Amino acid sequence: MKTRKLPAPAGDPSDRRNFLKHGIVSAGAVAVGAATAKAHAADPIGKDFPAFSVTPGAPFRGYGQPSRHEEKVLRALTPGYGAIAPGTGSSRTPLQTLNGALTPSGLHFERHHNGVPDIDPAQHKLLIHGLVKKPLVFTEAALLRYPMVSRTAFVECAGNSGANTLPAAPQANCGAIHGLLSGSEWTGVSLSLLLDEAGVEPGAKWFLAEGADSAAMSRSMLLDKAYDDAIVALYQNGERIRPEQGYPMRLLVPGYQGNLNVKWLRRLELTEGPTHTKDETSKYSMLMRDGKARQFMFELGVKSVITRPSGGLGMPGAGLYEISGLAWSGAGRIVKAEVSIDGGTSWREAVLQAPVLSKALTRFRLPWQWNGSPAMLQSRATDEKGNVQPARAEWTAQYSAANRYHNNMIQTWAVKADGSISNVYL
Amino acid sequence: MKTRKLPAPAGDPSDRRNFLKHGIVSAGAVAVGAATAKAHAADPIGKDFPAFSVTPGAPFRGYGQPSRHEEKVLRALTPGYGAIAPGTGSSRTPLQTLNGALTPSGLHFERHHNGVPDIDPAQHKLLIHGLVKKPLVFTEAALLRYPMVSRTAFVECAGNSGANTLPAAPQANCGAIHGLLSGSEWTGVSLSLLLDEAGVEPGAKWFLAEGADSAAMSRSMLLDKAYDDAIVALYQNGERIRPEQGYPMRLLVPGYQGNLNVKWLRRLELTEGPTHTKDETSKYSMLMRDGKARQFMFELGVKSVITRPSGGLGMPGAGLYEISGLAWSGAGRIVKAEVSIDGGTSWREAVLQAPVLSKALTRFRLPWQWNGSPAMLQSRATDEKGNVQPARAEWTAQYSAANRYHNNMIQTWAVKADGSISNVYL
Repeated sequence: MKTRKLPAPAGDPSDRRNFLKHGIVSAGAVAVGAATAKAHAADPIGKDFPAFSVTPGAPFRGYGQPSRHEEKVLRALTPGYGAIAPGTGSSRTPLQTLNGALTPSGLHFERHHNGVPDIDPAQHKLLIHGLVKKPLVFTEAALLRYPMVSRTAFVECAGNSGANTLPAAPQANCGAIHGLLSGSEWTGVSLSLLLDEAGVEPGAKWFLAEGADSAAMSRSMLLDKAYDDAIVALYQNGERIRPEQGYPMRLLVPGYQGNLNVKWLRRLELTEGPTHTKDETSKYSMLMRDGKARQFMFELGVKSVITRPSGGLGMPGAGLYEISGLAWSGAGRIVKAEVSIDGGTSWREAVLQAPVLSKALTRFRLPWQWNGSPAMLQSRATDEKGNVQPARAEWTAQYSAANRYHNNMIQTWAVKADGSISNVYL
Repeated sequence: MKTRKLPAPAGDPSDRRNFLKHGIVSAGAVAVGAATAKAHAADPIGKDFPAFSVTPGAPFRGYGQPSRHEEKVLRALTPGYGAIAPGTGSSRTPLQTLNGALTPSGLHFERHHNGVPDIDPAQHKLLIHGLVKKPLVFTEAALLRYPMVSRTAFVECAGNSGANTLPAAPQANCGAIHGLLSGSEWTGVSLSLLLDEAGVEPGAKWFLAEGADSAAMSRSMLLDKAYDDAIVALYQNGERIRPEQGYPMRLLVPGYQGNLNVKWLRRLELTEGPTHTKDETSKYSMLMRDGKARQFMFELGVKSVITRPSGGLGMPGAGLYEISGLAWSGAGRIVKAEVSIDGGTSWREAVLQAPVLSKALTRFRLPWQWNGSPAMLQSRATDEKGNVQPARAEWTAQYSAANRYHNNMIQTWAVKADGSISNVYL
C-alpha cells in the first residue's frame, strides 16, 4: 500500500457540479493492489480483524452518549469564569470539530449570570402581566397542551468574537473565538398566542422578559418581535430543553442578541417603554466611534466564519481540502457565502447546504486544492436584505476601540507553508 | 386563582390561520387577579421564590445532559432482548415525549445484531472493492478531508410497528410500537464520489455493504442508490456519529429499510447481483398473501403516526389539545397529513411544519377541541408520488398474516370519555 499523489484539479473548484463531474476528489485515499483486495476481501486492514470486530459489543443504553474516542470534543470555558460572581461566564461550542448546520444540544454554548438553576418544572410558572387586560399564569403542564411551532434558529451572544476586537489577534481555535454561537431546532408556543389570550392594552409597546435564575436575568424589547416570530420554547432538537439552555422554558427571539432569548423564563411584563434593567444598562451597549453609545441594538449582523481549516487545526501537506464554515444573519436568509484564499483579493462562491432557513446557521462548502503555498482564508456572507459582512477596517471604522459587541467582521485564517494555521488581522 | 373554563372553538380548527386569528387557544391558562399580579409583579408563584431562584446554580459543563427531571425519557428496550444472541435486539425512540422533527441523538433508536462495537477510529478502515478498476482503502482521517454533504433523513427499521400486525392490538405507548424510527441531520461523503474514484466496472449492478460489528451485518442493494443519494455518514446532528448509530461511519441510504443503512461500515463490494448474506436471507423477506415472498424490498412506504395524544398518555379533561405527529415516506416529500377524530369517517388536513424535506420526518399539527366524548384518532399521510398511507384492511389484504415487515397501515388511538387512550384495530 502507498499513499497516492493527489491529482491537480481538473476544473474550477468553485463550481461544485464541475468538481463532481470531473471526479477529481482523491484526498488521501490509499490504493490497494487487486490481489491483496481479493485475498482479504472481507478484511480491509490486513490478515486479522481488530478486537472490536470479533467480540460482542456493548449492551443497549437508555440514553446514548458520544464515543469515548471523542471525549475531547467539549465546550471550552471562557477564561475569567466566575471572576464577577459564582456561575458567571460562558463556555463555547467547538465549531472546528462539528459539521452540518446543527449544534448537538450537549455542545450548545453556555452563558450564565449565576450558574444553571435546577428547576423543578412542577414548581415553575410563567407570568404574563403589566399592560394586559387579564394577567395570566401558565404552568408547564398548561403550556404543553398549547399548539406548537418548530423552527430552526441560531442563538449568538452579542459578545461573540469579541476577542477579535482586541489590539492583537488572539491565537485560539475557531470555537474559542467564535463559539458563542449555536444552532438548534426549537419547538414551543408562539408568544403572540399567549399575548392574545392575555389581551394586550393599547399602550403596550415593549415587554420585559425575566429568567428564574438567581441573577433574575432580564431584558426589554419591542413588542413587535412578540408578534413577529417569538416563541416560548419548550423543546430543543426534539427533546425538552436542556438545563443550560433554559429548562423548562426559554424565550426564543430569532436573530436577536443571545441574552434576549431569556432562559428559565418566568415573567413577561408588557410595558410602555424599556425597563432599563441591570442587564441592559451595565452591558450590551454599543460604544460608537463618535463617542456615543447605542442601546437596544437587538438584531445581529450578517456574518460567517470558516470552521475548517481554521486556527490550530493544521493541514497535513498539500492536496485537496474542503473549506467549510457557517453563515448566518439576524435579518433573514443567507443568499451568498464567498470564500477567498488570498485575503480578500479574489472571491469564489461556496455551495450553501440546503435547506437555507431564515435566521438559522447555514453550512457552506468549497473544495480547495491547496498547492502548499501560504494562503489567507476568508469568508464573506450576504443575506436576503442585501447586507454584506464587513471587512475588518469597515467594522472598526464604526465603533469605539473599546467596543466588544456585535463583531461580525470578516475572519482571516493564515495558512503557512508548513500547514499551520493562525488567526491574523487583515 | 381558579382554572378558566375553556371556550368553544370560534372557527374551524382545521384552519390554523383562522384558529390563530380568533385567538381561541386557552388550554389551562390560569387567570390571576390584577391586584395579585401587581403586588407580586416579580413573583408569579406567591410570596416567595422557589429555592432554585434564590441560590446560585450549577457550574458549567463540558458536555451537557438533559435535566434530571426528564430522567424517565429513555429509549425503551424491546422485549426479548438478547434471546437470539448477546447484544441482539432493539430499543425504541420515545416518540410520545418528543416534539419537532428531529430525534436527539441520545434517543435515536437502536438495532444491533451483536451489541455496539467500541471502534477505535484510528484502527478502522473502509474498503471499496469488487467490480472496480482500483480497489481503495480509506482511513477515517482521509475521509474527513473529502467534500461533504448534509441531509436530514429518517431511519426506520423494516420491523417497525410490527407489533400492530399481531392478532390482538398491543397495549403499549407510541414509542414502544412505532419507535424504531428516528430523524437526524447526517453529514458525510457522497458515496458516488468514492465510487468514481475507485472506478466502477461496467458489470457492477449491485453492492454489498458490511459492518465492522462482530455480527458483520451486511446487506446488498442496487448500485443505482449509490448514485442517487447514498452517503458515507460521519456526523449526526452536528457532531461525530454516536456509537449506537455506527461510529465512526455508517452508510446512509435515505428512505430505505433501516438495516440497509449499515453501521460501523467497513466494506463496500461492487457485484453483479445480490450477495444473499445471512442478514437478507434469514430476515427482511416480505411474506405475501398469495404465499410468495418478496425479497429486496428496499423502499419504505408512506406512513404517519399521531404521537400525542397517544396510547397511555391520557387527557386530563375536555378542552383544547394539539393533535400532533410525524409523517414520512421513503419515496420523497410528504405533501399531506390528514387527521380523523372519528376513526376515518371524516378527515381534516393538518398543518405541516416547514421545512418539509424529502425522506425526512415531517411534524404535523392540528388543534382539537375535545368535547369529552369517545373518539378514534387516526392520521393518514400522502407523499409527492401520490402514495397514500393504507388503512388496516388494505394493508392486511396484501400480506401473509405471518408478515411483520413494512407495516405502514393507519394507526388508531381510541380515546375514552375518561381521557384514557388505547391502541385499537379498526
